[in-house]
Amino acid sequence: METKAIAFNTGFALIEGNHFEEIMWQTESLSPLDVLVEVHAISVNPVDTKLRQSASTDQWRVLGFDAVGEIIECGSDVSDFSIGDMIMYSGTEKRAGSYAEHQVVDSRIVANIPKNISIEEAAALPLTSITAYEVLFEKLGLIPEENGNLDENILIVNGAGGVGSIAIQLAKWAGLNVLATASRPETSQWIKQMGADISLDHRKDLVEQMRELNLTEMKRILLLHSTDYYFESMAHFLAPFGHLASIVATTEPVNLSILKNKSASFDWEFMFAKTNYDYQIDSQGEILKIIAQLIDDKKIVSTHTTTLEGLSSQTIFEAHRLLETNRTLGKIVIRVK
Amino acid sequence: METKAIAFNTGFALIEGNHFEEIMWQTESLSPLDVLVEVHAISVNPVDTKLRQSASTDQWRVLGFDAVGEIIECGSDVSDFSIGDMIMYSGTEKRAGSYAEHQVVDSRIVANIPKNISIEEAAALPLTSITAYEVLFEKLGLIPEENGNLDENILIVNGAGGVGSIAIQLAKWAGLNVLATASRPETSQWIKQMGADISLDHRKDLVEQMRELNLTEMKRILLLHSTDYYFESMAHFLAPFGHLASIVATTEPVNLSILKNKSASFDWEFMFAKTNYDYQIDSQGEILKIIAQLIDDKKIVSTHTTTLEGLSSQTIFEAHRLLETNRTLGKIVIRVK
Repeated sequence: METKAIAFNTGFALIEGNHFEEIMWQTESLSPLDVLVEVHAISVNPVDTKLRQSASTDQWRVLGFDAVGEIIECGSDVSDFSIGDMIMYSGTEKRAGSYAEHQVVDSRIVANIPKNISIEEAAALPLTSITAYEVLFEKLGLIPEENGNLDENILIVNGAGGVGSIAIQLAKWAGLNVLATASRPETSQWIKQMGADISLDHRKDLVEQMRELNLTEMKRILLLHSTDYYFESMAHFLAPFGHLASIVATTEPVNLSILKNKSASFDWEFMFAKTNYDYQIDSQGEILKIIAQLIDDKKIVSTHTTTLEGLSSQTIFEAHRLLETNRTLGKIVIRVK
Repeated sequence: METKAIAFNTGFALIEGNHFEEIMWQTESLSPLDVLVEVHAISVNPVDTKLRQSASTDQWRVLGFDAVGEIIECGSDVSDFSIGDMIMYSGTEKRAGSYAEHQVVDSRIVANIPKNISIEEAAALPLTSITAYEVLFEKLGLIPEENGNLDENILIVNGAGGVGSIAIQLAKWAGLNVLATASRPETSQWIKQMGADISLDHRKDLVEQMRELNLTEMKRILLLHSTDYYFESMAHFLAPFGHLASIVATTEPVNLSILKNKSASFDWEFMFAKTNYDYQIDSQGEILKIIAQLIDDKKIVSTHTTTLEGLSSQTIFEAHRLLETNRTLGKIVIRVK
């Protein structure tokens, strides 16, 4: 069907002005496992701003990797969902995103929204929750059960960002002692609010701050900010047989041998890899189902803080602008319907 | 007690002549979990030659990380072993090695030798078996059961070395399809004999050879030779969510970001890390017990090929010389008693 979408066709910096445009866009035809969604709210993520700057194409590109919407049509093989279901999803890099009034999405990567939160709160969840869940429970070897990892600890570098805010909550739910870093009084307070047991300042020497707490090593360290900058010090601080994980690409080669005599591992987490490579795709729907249950059970909360009204090139531009200030706390949601 | 040992006190290259010396050496006093062993046979490993070159000390250093011997005294808390037991072990970097007629070893890292093989064959097993077992089943996520990993495959770069020869056999036992590399007709034949399904030539382009086999990626790749040289091409060849593991330290920084969009992992395996850092030490005794059982059940074979007679500075020097030719096949054992 034809739908309104916000798109761009040449990568641009915000300083060049607003090159997002409102276009009429043809949604894809439904494959057997797809659903067609009327989008009610979307959220923006740092990956959106990166792609907006780098994507260079002759075709319109519709970004957006978080949405809540109502199913208005189901593919022939969809059995888990029905027309009228209000669902949430992050989507994939391979298809048109959620900056649109209607979107086609694979039903294996969606879940019904939690019962007792707002549409905006639900729209803030998918990308950050899937990423945080995957890295904690599929990469770092933690057990995805309430208090399933007592006596374990984790250091989350940049705990106040989107992924960090959910990762802190999931790690606390799973029973870990959580150290997280921030760099300003507001973000430090925020990570405490998310449940961090200890707040450190990642603009200062982290190793020194941990030594003051009598910590000489950590078995699990999650880098959510500049792997280039933190790799070496955190690799030295990692415990033997530990896991150092990151979601932020390196731009320079790293000294991997630091980890060698500790028989340690380095793990990348990239949530779009599953849909990009057709690898256990339905696990992302399962993860969102678990997240919805954890919200229903009040074990974790949405990190939504900011709402912009209406899908337009102006609200999308404003959302990108806010993200790029690096001063926002919590997730920015755009109410579409 | 006082015992004969072969030692050196300044790191040396073989070209400088034989600086191993026969000395009388005081074994350590037994801690509660230790046993005192009369050494019957030892084996040499590449790590020995590295330490001989680099170790610089004013004290005598006794190397040796593989032995079979008879227990002649037990520490007060040893309950799993008795005087007269013939055991095998690799030992640890932290204590005197097996180039000696008597040695003290922690009973948690030893096992009774297999029933139906020679002392020499048993002495060839510990270090390579523990390393191969740990990397396959503790790092690469394989299931340590016979045929427990059907439909899985692995590429072992440098399959003809000590660790590779056991890793091929353990991977075959565990049900994997095994691709291994060698560089000469003899080593290529050897890895087939160890059970490799496919033999590749690691002096030629590995990716091209795998493409000819219609393989475009591998989920598990084990580097047992020059991580510096193979990291980049193998990182590119690794499948999404794959694991690239290595036992060979890098000397240069590596481009870790190649693995990022595949959400993949890099794992170091270093067998001395457990005893160096007091981490699950008894797992190494357990591994050797499993290895002995697999030998008894004829599921795997010892890789022993060469025996030198008698513990002397000459036999130790000759063993190091043979290792450094890089032309030996199978393990070199020195019969001590």
